Amino acid sequence: MRLWRHFVFIALLCSASFSQTPLNRDWEKEFRALPDPKLMREYMQRLSARPHHLGSPYGKDNAEWLLAKFKEWGVEAQIETFHVLFPSPQERVVEMLAPTKFVAKLQEPALAEDPSSNQLSEQLPSYNAYSIDGDVTAPLVYVNYGIPSDYEELERLGISVKGCIVIARYGASWRGIKPKVAAEHGAVGCIIYSDPIDDGYYEGEVYPKGPYRPSTGVQRGSVMDMPTYPGDPLTPGVGATANAKRMERKDVKTFTTIPVLPISYGDAQPLLAALVGRVAPEGWRGALPITYRTGPGPVKVRLKLQFHWDLKPIYNVIVKIPGAVYSDEWIMRGNHHDAWVNGAEDPISGMVALMEEVRAFSVLLKQGWKPKRTLIYCAWDAEEQGLLGSTEWAETHAEELRQKAVVYINTDGNGRGYLYSPGSHSLEKFINNVAKDIEDPETKLTVWKRSQLRGIADAKAPEARKELRSRPDLRIGALGSGSDYTAFLDHLGIASMHLGYGGEGGGGIYHSVYDSFHWFTNFSDTNFVYGRALAQTAGTAAMRFAESDLLPYDFSNLAETINKYLDELKKLANSKREEILERNKQIEEGVFAAINDPRAPRISPKTEEVPPYLNFAPLENASAALTQSAERYSTALQKFRETGKPAPLGLNKKLLQAEQKLTANEGLPNRPWFKHQIYAPGYYTGYGVKTIPAVREAIEQKQWPQVEPQIVRVSSVLLGMAEYINAITKELERAAQ
Amino acid sequence: MRLWRHFVFIALLCSASFSQTPLNRDWEKEFRALPDPKLMREYMQRLSARPHHLGSPYGKDNAEWLLAKFKEWGVEAQIETFHVLFPSPQERVVEMLAPTKFVAKLQEPALAEDPSSNQLSEQLPSYNAYSIDGDVTAPLVYVNYGIPSDYEELERLGISVKGCIVIARYGASWRGIKPKVAAEHGAVGCIIYSDPIDDGYYEGEVYPKGPYRPSTGVQRGSVMDMPTYPGDPLTPGVGATANAKRMERKDVKTFTTIPVLPISYGDAQPLLAALVGRVAPEGWRGALPITYRTGPGPVKVRLKLQFHWDLKPIYNVIVKIPGAVYSDEWIMRGNHHDAWVNGAEDPISGMVALMEEVRAFSVLLKQGWKPKRTLIYCAWDAEEQGLLGSTEWAETHAEELRQKAVVYINTDGNGRGYLYSPGSHSLEKFINNVAKDIEDPETKLTVWKRSQLRGIADAKAPEARKELRSRPDLRIGALGSGSDYTAFLDHLGIASMHLGYGGEGGGGIYHSVYDSFHWFTNFSDTNFVYGRALAQTAGTAAMRFAESDLLPYDFSNLAETINKYLDELKKLANSKREEILERNKQIEEGVFAAINDPRAPRISPKTEEVPPYLNFAPLENASAALTQSAERYSTALQKFRETGKPAPLGLNKKLLQAEQKLTANEGLPNRPWFKHQIYAPGYYTGYGVKTIPAVREAIEQKQWPQVEPQIVRVSSVLLGMAEYINAITKELERAAQ
Repeated sequence: MRLWRHFVFIALLCSASFSQTPLNRDWEKEFRALPDPKLMREYMQRLSARPHHLGSPYGKDNAEWLLAKFKEWGVEAQIETFHVLFPSPQERVVEMLAPTKFVAKLQEPALAEDPSSNQLSEQLPSYNAYSIDGDVTAPLVYVNYGIPSDYEELERLGISVKGCIVIARYGASWRGIKPKVAAEHGAVGCIIYSDPIDDGYYEGEVYPKGPYRPSTGVQRGSVMDMPTYPGDPLTPGVGATANAKRMERKDVKTFTTIPVLPISYGDAQPLLAALVGRVAPEGWRGALPITYRTGPGPVKVRLKLQFHWDLKPIYNVIVKIPGAVYSDEWIMRGNHHDAWVNGAEDPISGMVALMEEVRAFSVLLKQGWKPKRTLIYCAWDAEEQGLLGSTEWAETHAEELRQKAVVYINTDGNGRGYLYSPGSHSLEKFINNVAKDIEDPETKLTVWKRSQLRGIADAKAPEARKELRSRPDLRIGALGSGSDYTAFLDHLGIASMHLGYGGEGGGGIYHSVYDSFHWFTNFSDTNFVYGRALAQTAGTAAMRFAESDLLPYDFSNLAETINKYLDELKKLANSKREEILERNKQIEEGVFAAINDPRAPRISPKTEEVPPYLNFAPLENASAALTQSAERYSTALQKFRETGKPAPLGLNKKLLQAEQKLTANEGLPNRPWFKHQIYAPGYYTGYGVKTIPAVREAIEQKQWPQVEPQIVRVSSVLLGMAEYINAITKELERAAQ
Repeated sequence: MRLWRHFVFIALLCSASFSQTPLNRDWEKEFRALPDPKLMREYMQRLSARPHHLGSPYGKDNAEWLLAKFKEWGVEAQIETFHVLFPSPQERVVEMLAPTKFVAKLQEPALAEDPSSNQLSEQLPSYNAYSIDGDVTAPLVYVNYGIPSDYEELERLGISVKGCIVIARYGASWRGIKPKVAAEHGAVGCIIYSDPIDDGYYEGEVYPKGPYRPSTGVQRGSVMDMPTYPGDPLTPGVGATANAKRMERKDVKTFTTIPVLPISYGDAQPLLAALVGRVAPEGWRGALPITYRTGPGPVKVRLKLQFHWDLKPIYNVIVKIPGAVYSDEWIMRGNHHDAWVNGAEDPISGMVALMEEVRAFSVLLKQGWKPKRTLIYCAWDAEEQGLLGSTEWAETHAEELRQKAVVYINTDGNGRGYLYSPGSHSLEKFINNVAKDIEDPETKLTVWKRSQLRGIADAKAPEARKELRSRPDLRIGALGSGSDYTAFLDHLGIASMHLGYGGEGGGGIYHSVYDSFHWFTNFSDTNFVYGRALAQTAGTAAMRFAESDLLPYDFSNLAETINKYLDELKKLANSKREEILERNKQIEEGVFAAINDPRAPRISPKTEEVPPYLNFAPLENASAALTQSAERYSTALQKFRETGKPAPLGLNKKLLQAEQKLTANEGLPNRPWFKHQIYAPGYYTGYGVKTIPAVREAIEQKQWPQVEPQIVRVSSVLLGMAEYINAITKELERAAQ
């Protein structure tokens, strides 16, 4: 569901590495020769031929076809069904009542060039899932991206959205943040549109002549409050099985509290052009040929939304390739199969890679390959509405997963360019190793090398270039949310990674009817060579994890990264302090009065309480302890490897639970579903990760009394992790003797 | 002629100051009470009532009216006439021949709201003065702002403009740079347009509903190669008097070498929309609702220009208020009176302030005020075409000016907001002192205080805020070019300053028919209170210079500033070196090949010779000597003041020539007219100043063998200045004994 190409990437490989038997290496190489771009193209054509959203006939058909395909290849597969709450549009109205009358079309027309764009009877209309029903008429205010800082700017401009409908543009946050923050500021409705500056003609030629969003294109998407919990709204924390205990709809906390609807820039332009009031700040202006203004006035808009609120079945297709040695150690691999409409890019471009991995394994199995560990390949349903398929499955199997899951490897949409591989930092070294064995289709460099050189080209500071040139591993980003790893990593504490290629080309068909086979095969990875690279990357990762003697987690990079986050937190606290001190001083000096233009007046900010100096010592001590234990583990591992002995019995079982030591059962403040204490989607970013979120968000949100208790809490989690690694290390040291 | 509101400002006042008798102070205060906004409004209405460009009937009429007005007020005044080469349009054609046919209208329509916009028979059509005649038909290429770095980017994209017509947008440089750089790259024609992102609807409501440029508005302007020399092209270095020796037109070096014409964004849009080829880099895109592309192809354009090349009389109106004590020490003050069309803002909003200064002085004179020094007030003609009126006058009176001119105080257009006061740094302390005595009309703070607080609000770095809070003087910017101070400062070495208010509000009527009384009185300094502030500021500066016992130059701030420039030069040389080293390294590593997108290929840069380490020691020694001499002068001055004695005979005459010691008779490399060695307009910026230009431009243009000889040359100039100050200091020390 997430638009991966917009990601800031950091990727991939290392020097020191754990030895593998030549035998394994050969199977890996054989594996990488198998994924076939031609077949991927065929799968995509089939899977994206008709709309296949949650609850659609073709969605079920696709699941059954996938099941049949997997069985045809000779692997064990089954469909697991859940029943989830799914709102779909019954009535959608956006009309301008003043100063002139205009009725938004809310329709993406069929294009002669794109054969799948005319399936009107099967298409899910453009809407935001989990908006509440509503019928509001109110003045319109333009709020830029509608993120918290935009409302601070509105306050400076003396503009309130109380009782208004806001219009926000897509971008800068996950879309669900926009109605959430709007409602917090008293708005009664929210319209989201795609400005052409973000993915329309400003970026390039529009569809069907080019890849970018035409004036009629609309981005559908979920607005469920996923930073609180994802998955079926009625069954938080438990699987939405047929007989699950369900909340009542009125008690659900993850619906929006105001109605919200996405529209095209064709529909948005008349509304925005009619706004008067302040000229929007420079950073707020898009690429429409108008003067962007904030309003309010004289635009009055009616937003009327009515949804069908149905329980619908969803179909996860689960493949199991049993491990020959450690059958209760599971390598998890997933990609969703549902789409908003035809979804050639999102998610089918990732799905076809996953399929080719399964097919390739089936070929190897027939040739005698026997993976040591069990491979679980998952084609999730209902990701688009809020990660429902993966979340319900993970919640259902939570206990077993905590015992058995080694790693979760996710993919979603795929494109051309560079490997993006955010994930748990205990996997950083591993991902780097994989990336060094994958060839980039365009340059024939390894994808690791290409990423390193891209990093060097983009680095602003000489120190950043120096690190890129000298550090054995390229840094990987941390995972926020936006795809199916969320339940595995954030709820269960299973080490996870997300893989995808992107960064070249671009487009504006995301979550529209134009995300089609025609679009993908004309403007994206047209010959599926990056689809092959993705299958090679994810499959190699899965295989290597399945085959390794000792599970290839690395705690040194994790410890170093956590130490880096700690530095960031200290700097953040300091800069907040200095910022408030400086602003208070400027208020006292009369700066804001002095620079006020009487014809464009601004409200002066208020003096704020200066934050206290904070005690970071517990985190510093915990981080030091973790660093020490990680180093001790690395040394012990090295010595143990030199012995050539097999892994001590039960040690892998302990290792696979290490990431879980970074979770706390009580979860994050006010969102207990999120248990990981290092990674979480930001409460006010949605996609964007917040690392050490309990501490970071308390500082960002200036909840000063909360900071130190959270520091203490997170520190004890880290100390627990350090102790856990120490215990494993002792076993390893004993075994090496 | 320059759009002052777009200036980055740094302004104004100090702690230590030279004492003035209470008597003087009283006259100053009385002076500041006199300028009258109502009268300024009347003057503007009269002066901007009809088009009054160089050679126009109303231009002459205005000059005569000004003369009569000055005489009516009882001051000595006369008109000095010169005869200059003035091209005016005979034929202007821009048409697109392919892929479709389109003929540019090249016409700014009359607006019912604006009574002076319909004077078609008197308006100078939209064009660029000193473009050559030409008739070219060629493919079109979009080159962004058309500055050197844009052509580097085009080279990376593999696009040549050879044999093409370029279309550049206004901004980022003085307009004359655009055809110059285009021709250097082989273009055969140049079209310049005003993109709505720069001063059109992107910024705010367009005229006549708002102040910004409508789709039909065109920016006229000179494209003479002023960084080579300004003024009448036929008489460089000498006054264009009736009998002056004139070059032949064919020998002139300051015409463009290709035809160039400005157009509106209404006329530009069809051309730009029809371009294909690469999507323009992000920073190149404007606010038209199109995908910006570079071309070439398939757009073929014809640009045909034919001018009348006439000698025309121009009329400078010169007021002389003789000094009672030092009549051969001249305080110079000027503003031009000619405009491109009606020119209410540019230049009349400044002209009316100058008029009120003269009227106020005439009132004081009648009350018995007798300035010690002579005040020369100048209303220049023909500034717009290339500073012709002021340059020819300064060249004609060069010898006398070198002996007598104390300071030149310039104004031009005026607006609302903050005082902008770039100038010679020997005047920095003086300007700060003046600014502390002027009240800002909107905030009632002093204009100094308002500027300081604005600086604090805008400062990015804590160090910058610290300096703004602690340094006695606000830093002033250095003068580049773009108004009538150029000949005084750059050619003659007379300490100069430019004064103007701006930074609030905005507009897009610059050099168009819409720069009218209607526009100004609806959208700019509508009640002329900033006109009054300007008269108070410039008049106080003139008066204070006229009255001071010892001329109030300060060399410490000058020396400190030159030392700062030296630091900049060292950093510039270092960063060029590091940049080339790093790029060469990246070429070797294969970075550019690795990041190449095969669907949007870029040409890899070539390995460059690594620049040598440069010997800055001569400049360091000279700067140290200047600092020392400046400090010694300050100490001596302090002691001398304590004696209460009058200025030693002849010392002021020596002081007034100090700035001339910063000139070198040979001028700058390849542009001998520019004699000042600290300040000059950049050869590739036009408006933008280059400080220590001989050294800075050699580094910027990577002419490594030139750098050290220029360092040596400039060092000897600075040493000469230090010696000169030392000699003056000795006299002062003797006088204090």
